[in-house]
Amino acid sequence: MKQVRVGLIGTGYIGRCHAIAYAQAPTVFPLKGELVLEMLAEVTPELAAQRATEFGFARSTGDWRQLVADPAIDVVDICAPNFLHKEMALEAIRHGKHVYSEKPLALGAADAAEMVQAARAKGVKTLVGFNYMKNPTSQLAREIIANGEIGEVVHFYGTHNEDYLADPRTPIDWHCRRASAGLGALGDLAAHIVNMAHYLVGDIVAVSGDMQTVIKQRPDPQDPARLLPVENEDQASALLRFAGGAMGTLETSRIACGRKMGLTYVVTGTKGTLSYTQERMAELKLYRHDEPAERQGFKTLLVGPKHPDYAAFCISAGHGIGFNDQKTVEIRDLVNGIAAGDRMWPDFEEGWKVSCVLDAIAASAEQRRWLEINRD
Amino acid sequence: MKQVRVGLIGTGYIGRCHAIAYAQAPTVFPLKGELVLEMLAEVTPELAAQRATEFGFARSTGDWRQLVADPAIDVVDICAPNFLHKEMALEAIRHGKHVYSEKPLALGAADAAEMVQAARAKGVKTLVGFNYMKNPTSQLAREIIANGEIGEVVHFYGTHNEDYLADPRTPIDWHCRRASAGLGALGDLAAHIVNMAHYLVGDIVAVSGDMQTVIKQRPDPQDPARLLPVENEDQASALLRFAGGAMGTLETSRIACGRKMGLTYVVTGTKGTLSYTQERMAELKLYRHDEPAERQGFKTLLVGPKHPDYAAFCISAGHGIGFNDQKTVEIRDLVNGIAAGDRMWPDFEEGWKVSCVLDAIAASAEQRRWLEINRD
Amino acid sequence: MKQVRVGLIGTGYIGRCHAIAYAQAPTVFPLKGELVLEMLAEVTPELAAQRATEFGFARSTGDWRQLVADPAIDVVDICAPNFLHKEMALEAIRHGKHVYSEKPLALGAADAAEMVQAARAKGVKTLVGFNYMKNPTSQLAREIIANGEIGEVVHFYGTHNEDYLADPRTPIDWHCRRASAGLGALGDLAAHIVNMAHYLVGDIVAVSGDMQTVIKQRPDPQDPARLLPVENEDQASALLRFAGGAMGTLETSRIACGRKMGLTYVVTGTKGTLSYTQERMAELKLYRHDEPAERQGFKTLLVGPKHPDYAAFCISAGHGIGFNDQKTVEIRDLVNGIAAGDRMWPDFEEGWKVSCVLDAIAASAEQRRWLEINRD
Amino acid sequence: MKQVRVGLIGTGYIGRCHAIAYAQAPTVFPLKGELVLEMLAEVTPELAAQRATEFGFARSTGDWRQLVADPAIDVVDICAPNFLHKEMALEAIRHGKHVYSEKPLALGAADAAEMVQAARAKGVKTLVGFNYMKNPTSQLAREIIANGEIGEVVHFYGTHNEDYLADPRTPIDWHCRRASAGLGALGDLAAHIVNMAHYLVGDIVAVSGDMQTVIKQRPDPQDPARLLPVENEDQASALLRFAGGAMGTLETSRIACGRKMGLTYVVTGTKGTLSYTQERMAELKLYRHDEPAERQGFKTLLVGPKHPDYAAFCISAGHGIGFNDQKTVEIRDLVNGIAAGDRMWPDFEEGWKVSCVLDAIAASAEQRRWLEINRD
Repeated sequence: MKQVRVGLIGTGYIGRCHAIAYAQAPTVFPLKGELVLEMLAEVTPELAAQRATEFGFARSTGDWRQLVADPAIDVVDICAPNFLHKEMALEAIRHGKHVYSEKPLALGAADAAEMVQAARAKGVKTLVGFNYMKNPTSQLAREIIANGEIGEVVHFYGTHNEDYLADPRTPIDWHCRRASAGLGALGDLAAHIVNMAHYLVGDIVAVSGDMQTVIKQRPDPQDPARLLPVENEDQASALLRFAGGAMGTLETSRIACGRKMGLTYVVTGTKGTLSYTQERMAELKLYRHDEPAERQGFKTLLVGPKHPDYAAFCISAGHGIGFNDQKTVEIRDLVNGIAAGDRMWPDFEEGWKVSCVLDAIAASAEQRRWLEINRD
Repeated sequence: MKQVRVGLIGTGYIGRCHAIAYAQAPTVFPLKGELVLEMLAEVTPELAAQRATEFGFARSTGDWRQLVADPAIDVVDICAPNFLHKEMALEAIRHGKHVYSEKPLALGAADAAEMVQAARAKGVKTLVGFNYMKNPTSQLAREIIANGEIGEVVHFYGTHNEDYLADPRTPIDWHCRRASAGLGALGDLAAHIVNMAHYLVGDIVAVSGDMQTVIKQRPDPQDPARLLPVENEDQASALLRFAGGAMGTLETSRIACGRKMGLTYVVTGTKGTLSYTQERMAELKLYRHDEPAERQGFKTLLVGPKHPDYAAFCISAGHGIGFNDQKTVEIRDLVNGIAAGDRMWPDFEEGWKVSCVLDAIAASAEQRRWLEINRD
Repeated sequence: MKQVRVGLIGTGYIGRCHAIAYAQAPTVFPLKGELVLEMLAEVTPELAAQRATEFGFARSTGDWRQLVADPAIDVVDICAPNFLHKEMALEAIRHGKHVYSEKPLALGAADAAEMVQAARAKGVKTLVGFNYMKNPTSQLAREIIANGEIGEVVHFYGTHNEDYLADPRTPIDWHCRRASAGLGALGDLAAHIVNMAHYLVGDIVAVSGDMQTVIKQRPDPQDPARLLPVENEDQASALLRFAGGAMGTLETSRIACGRKMGLTYVVTGTKGTLSYTQERMAELKLYRHDEPAERQGFKTLLVGPKHPDYAAFCISAGHGIGFNDQKTVEIRDLVNGIAAGDRMWPDFEEGWKVSCVLDAIAASAEQRRWLEINRD
Repeated sequence: MKQVRVGLIGTGYIGRCHAIAYAQAPTVFPLKGELVLEMLAEVTPELAAQRATEFGFARSTGDWRQLVADPAIDVVDICAPNFLHKEMALEAIRHGKHVYSEKPLALGAADAAEMVQAARAKGVKTLVGFNYMKNPTSQLAREIIANGEIGEVVHFYGTHNEDYLADPRTPIDWHCRRASAGLGALGDLAAHIVNMAHYLVGDIVAVSGDMQTVIKQRPDPQDPARLLPVENEDQASALLRFAGGAMGTLETSRIACGRKMGLTYVVTGTKGTLSYTQERMAELKLYRHDEPAERQGFKTLLVGPKHPDYAAFCISAGHGIGFNDQKTVEIRDLVNGIAAGDRMWPDFEEGWKVSCVLDAIAASAEQRRWLEINRD
């Protein structure tokens, strides 16, 4: 079986998640390639070595450039902070590596476009970590839509709201700076729901946006008495139009009190409606308007082995799927994509398309008018 | 005790609701005036007489003009189709009657403005039937916001979605024609959620709207094989800005499969969040961000006797409030307003302000840009 | 149209509820008789007169014996404290009046049996105020079961839990004394869920019970420093067997923290399941096992005009039903029963059957073994 | 670091679950021992070899006796069918191995007692796979109870209902035979909820039970036209008394239409209530009666990093925990127990105590009276 040798850069929040998924994927799925945890890079050799032990990687380095150049690496997995994605990906591509990058692909659509071009030119494969669409429950949503069970989609409502910056006393960090994060809630959170909208409904072709920095200053973590300016939006909204004609609405916030994992969607069709919230990630609500009026209602489907990709985790319905399990599906796609040529999606092109939408929302908010998404 | 003699015009869907509320109000509440069901008007004398018997009115007439001119009437209650509101109200005002009108106040903001002017000139009192804000649960929401329990409001999300026209085989009716209904889902449904937004958060000052007629033709009820054009929108959305600075989003639809009474709102503040859906009209969800992280969560409040206006219906919490009970609170406000000078709100001015927002959403949708609400 | 002249005794919590229902019933329903609010009795003539004005009764008295003997009364409505039900009902029956009594019918099955005998001997009609089964949503549940939509019932789980005595500092009152209340939570609350079990599944034929007085003493309301003994149970449970063979479980508590109106049931059949909680009184959850595994799930039905008795309140689905609306359906049954001979149920016999079950649970709890319900 | 060398017997449903947990545990948790997947046994050498490859075990065998005797094994993990647990465990203990057995520990309490004695005599450590109590959410429930946040526990309601045998056309299998399964729903499902009751509330000391075989015959899988007798119960219920005085109720069913993972509990205390369902395994509902009446309500806690064991999976709250993650916590306990002497619980003694309760329920159901749990 063909080997897929991974080089992982970054071991913070999402890097750990990747590591857990790498650990369980070969037991969960019958992979089409042999997954090899070859090398891990962190900011110092010491930290890299420690994490390599924890995460089961064979080698480690304090220099990511060494990793992307290493001949024993097939795919570079980028879990470093957002502002580094572009540089790392371009360098990895230069060395002919496949690239698996966390979202957002880049700080803006222009950067993302460069990355798409580079990957295309070099002929490497790409994958972006929009893990929520890998959830069996959201795969089921897509299946239901694709089957026509809710008719033609006429409306999409989507959110990605969290409250990690709701407290104004929370010190400023990299999320709040343009140079390190680009957009605020749009880039960090809405990227997921835009991808989900594309996955479930199709391309977004026009937007009218609004955004706001509610908490304009935050404490300096070094000197909490000193307040520093927040440089990007805490919350944003947009009206959407899809290529197929459907209307839509999108909301995102990092100060939405009470939302811990507030990715939600409601997809309304001519014959039915789907409703989902990621905080109950194993449930999908389905309404069919063609049932008799006296027996109409939203039905709560619990994800189970008759639905996509669930049976690999457990053969009984309703037993539950966790956050890392989504990433495990993503790793399966990565390994099968590289080893056996299976489709790898969302790829860099999708990452770029998401960035185009996010940038358009921000631009529309400034211009106070609708903008069409320019993807030429 | 001062009498409040009512003349009711129209006994369809909402007229019946008024009748039930009139029947129970004096038993539920210690009213400040004596409610007298004086006269009822319908399209024929026969129907009027029959309904007067059913609804407990003393007299009846087949001519509404006779009712509004009758000296024994103190207040005219207009439950006739929307396109008649203006004419009836102006005529009633001309005779010096107080006017209690169902929503929407008129087919557009210009008509509503005329009605406001007439009432103001004549010095009569007015009330508009935005009954959902009379629900004790929504009164509680306002109380929580006013107390500062969720801090400063930073975001409002509101919907009024139903599915009464979701089936394309449903024949065309007056809702679908500009001459009889004015706007579509905006006028029929969104009027409620705009009023609720005003009630909970404050005035809406700018909008960016979108709208769509999804089902462009419907069967002629007389000849189902013949299709007639639908003249107004099936669904609409808008981004909002409030006077206090908060952002907002509004959605409305009459083809939203599965929504039977889909008036919902989420009000996010700097310290907490409220969430509500009218389909569970006796529940309000409250989240407080100032609780310790390990015990944070949305709390489901069941409306009870410690909350506004509930105890009059039942002195035990959680026993439930029905649709007609909201209207009964409204009737209490009507009687106490006319008999004792208590505040009557939402009045015609609020009805006009709601119309201004709805018209602006429709205009913005055409112009593809933000519009400020012009209320001069 | 035949008159139905009512004499109401008692105007506390439930007396007010009756009054509201009397007020709205003729407007809500096309009654088969003319409802006349003839006379009202309270403990003093002054209070009686005041309540008669508030509730719209023509005459009043400070002596209930006068009311039950009055020739202008057709039906006596007993809303007095439980320990008076028997005496009042027997006296009313002696005068040939129909009797409408609140639950529990009596303090025990022996008393209830006497009442049944007296009513039968005199040929008067009876009705007991088990209002929760009049809710359109629970009527829908029965319809679904009767249709065979969930197959044969194999299990019933029912509760009536509240928390009105959860705080040990709440002073003792009549609920806690055997002489005034008989049983505790069983008599006050479980009476409803036993009636509901009979309504939905059929007769209960055997029980194994348990019960407990958790808070053994409570403050004297006159002298809170002094503690008085609680004489009946705070919570009770029972295993059940139904005549049709189904198993069941029943729970009741007046100290169940958080339950404000915790009447709930789950009815499991061979082909499906129904689930209901009175705190969401307009919703019924229905599961059908004959759907394909990948689309199985509990469907939330919102009660609407296609369901029993809802359309009289509102012709749109999902608009909600309130606590007093249930009683209004009961009043409709009372009037149509007396004026037109329609079936009046639950009658005294059902009230007695409920008492038999409650007594058997208490006896079983003492004897630590199963008891068959003796109804000879 | 000390090695913990595992020998796994059985690779069906639950064996796969163990394998996934073994795979991810060292990455998720900083284990106190080195986990070594040493050997795997299945019914044939070929199947064993295939599974060893899939699950990452070093060696394999078609004879479990060889595994339990192998000197390179520290702990034997028994995932074989229930009727084999006893023989395998006793044999493993005889060879001085620690034993990790799936539930139920044995087919009855007498067998379980033998196993406890053997382990005690040999001084080996034991663990039973009651994985649901390892869920961070249920650990949080215990923490809240232990903190006194809901006061003294006065009532426990628990279920473990599923519907895997709801369809009478489902052929008979080992679950339905006394020789292979012992009890029916009680042994297969209720074992979990009894363990949970012990974990959350304490020892059960008396029971009154009921049980029923609803579907008395099922098709022979070899010849579906032929019906074979079902030998154990489809559903069972029990009233409970706990050592601390609390009352309780337990329900279990394998024919409960609609329940896919219906382990649920409601724990009522003198000051509050907890409510949980495993189908929403990342949510716990908490009610506090000491809040002001106008702000009382059930609060939905989403499990997060401030709660036990969650942070190892993800450092953001509300991101979700899956079925296999519970087992991963159990594996952590196994490794740390064997390598570092950390407490391993539920051990065989708890497995035996659970069996005592289940046997007592069955015996009580036959004798139609309460039975005290005999644990001498």
